[in-house]
Amino acid sequence: MPDARDVQVHLLPQLVPNGALAGSVAVAVDVLRATTTVIHALAAGCDCVRPCLEVEEARELADRMRAGRVILGGERGGAPLPGFDLGNSPGEYTPKVCRGTTLVLTTTNGTRAMLKAAEADRALVAGFVNYSAVCEQLRTDPLPIQIVCAGTEGEVSLEDTLLAGALVDVLAEVVEIQLNDAARMAWDCFENHGQMLQGALELSLGGSKLRSLGYDEDIRAAAQVDQYALVPELRRDPLRVEVGAVGIVKSHWQR
Amino acid sequence: MPDARDVQVHLLPQLVPNGALAGSVAVAVDVLRATTTVIHALAAGCDCVRPCLEVEEARELADRMRAGRVILGGERGGAPLPGFDLGNSPGEYTPKVCRGTTLVLTTTNGTRAMLKAAEADRALVAGFVNYSAVCEQLRTDPLPIQIVCAGTEGEVSLEDTLLAGALVDVLAEVVEIQLNDAARMAWDCFENHGQMLQGALELSLGGSKLRSLGYDEDIRAAAQVDQYALVPELRRDPLRVEVGAVGIVKSHWQR
Repeated sequence: MPDARDVQVHLLPQLVPNGALAGSVAVAVDVLRATTTVIHALAAGCDCVRPCLEVEEARELADRMRAGRVILGGERGGAPLPGFDLGNSPGEYTPKVCRGTTLVLTTTNGTRAMLKAAEADRALVAGFVNYSAVCEQLRTDPLPIQIVCAGTEGEVSLEDTLLAGALVDVLAEVVEIQLNDAARMAWDCFENHGQMLQGALELSLGGSKLRSLGYDEDIRAAAQVDQYALVPELRRDPLRVEVGAVGIVKSHWQR
Repeated sequence: MPDARDVQVHLLPQLVPNGALAGSVAVAVDVLRATTTVIHALAAGCDCVRPCLEVEEARELADRMRAGRVILGGERGGAPLPGFDLGNSPGEYTPKVCRGTTLVLTTTNGTRAMLKAAEADRALVAGFVNYSAVCEQLRTDPLPIQIVCAGTEGEVSLEDTLLAGALVDVLAEVVEIQLNDAARMAWDCFENHGQMLQGALELSLGGSKLRSLGYDEDIRAAAQVDQYALVPELRRDPLRVEVGAVGIVKSHWQR
């Protein structure tokens, strides 16, 4: 087999072996809801997103920026934070609110996945809402691929694994790939749950929690495959997420 | 739904949330090779197995026991240990060697899963080689079920997830169950890989490592579904694994 391409999935940020991301293109996945929200925010006109691990770090960063040019957003335990402008619902990030601003974002799981992905040479941000655009970036990038799932409060999550598997499924069609066991399991997950995407998101741990908090609309928003054609990409100094490639040549969704 | 039964899968021992096993029946799974080897050793006549986390701990325990009545077995990195009587290949544990002895066993992954499972009210040891016997114990035990996969050196492993999914598959037919996301993923894994069990074990991370070390025979041994009808069970004071229930009423393997 001529140079099979490495495609590895990590079901949680803490399961990425030390140094594994060096020399690769990483993909951060937190379908419910952080990466979906980042895509929405950039599509709605935010200049960039600054992911922060801690609530206080996010507050301080936003305080240092010019009022009116910054949105402080995020959640803990799914709920909005006191004094924050917005929560972590994709639908809150409208053009009216977002245009020309920097979003400072801190969430329970997703920001961790994005910051872990930043250890790679190149790091992209994926949701179902920009699925085919991400597929095309991965297809044309020659680097090994490392998909970093956020999970839910330290537990592996069906919704992130499902998107990881959907990415594996497309890559398997276009290049020779070499998978780790988690990538095979993610692919299995997509094979079985991909045809009922919204149902799968609803019954997942993250989805159940959102429904119990009344965020059913966020699940529907996360399941809008290919709503956007942009791929958020991490930039450095300072670490931030901006719009990278834009465009979908063809839809890769095959369920 | 009347009292759906909790069936949770943990893809690695370190992913078991603190306290999650209290009040449950746990199942330790390390298909390649520790739990398969324990089943072989007990079937071959070992009185009990004493799982030890560390090599030195195993040596010291064996030293304290009467020569001729103890077997010191195990591996690190797949390879046998200097001064040990046996490695971690199921086929080494023959009646001639095992009858009437205590096996002191230390392995890279499997002993960790067994010792984690010991936090539960009841803990069983499963492989494909005693699959249906384990299914019957789980079916008739009213406690919530927690399946603890060993994984391979800190990474989730296809072979353990596959057996976890095979257990979920049977439980789903006989009782109302409530799954965590990892259990759903394991079930997906079984749906897709269960029909080619030996092939799946060969391509898994653990299987690839064993093949590179020349242990192909151990993979074939681990794939012998229902070779044995006994269920090893953890006992306390001192912590050890002995033959628990014996018997298979019907085969539950449906691939």
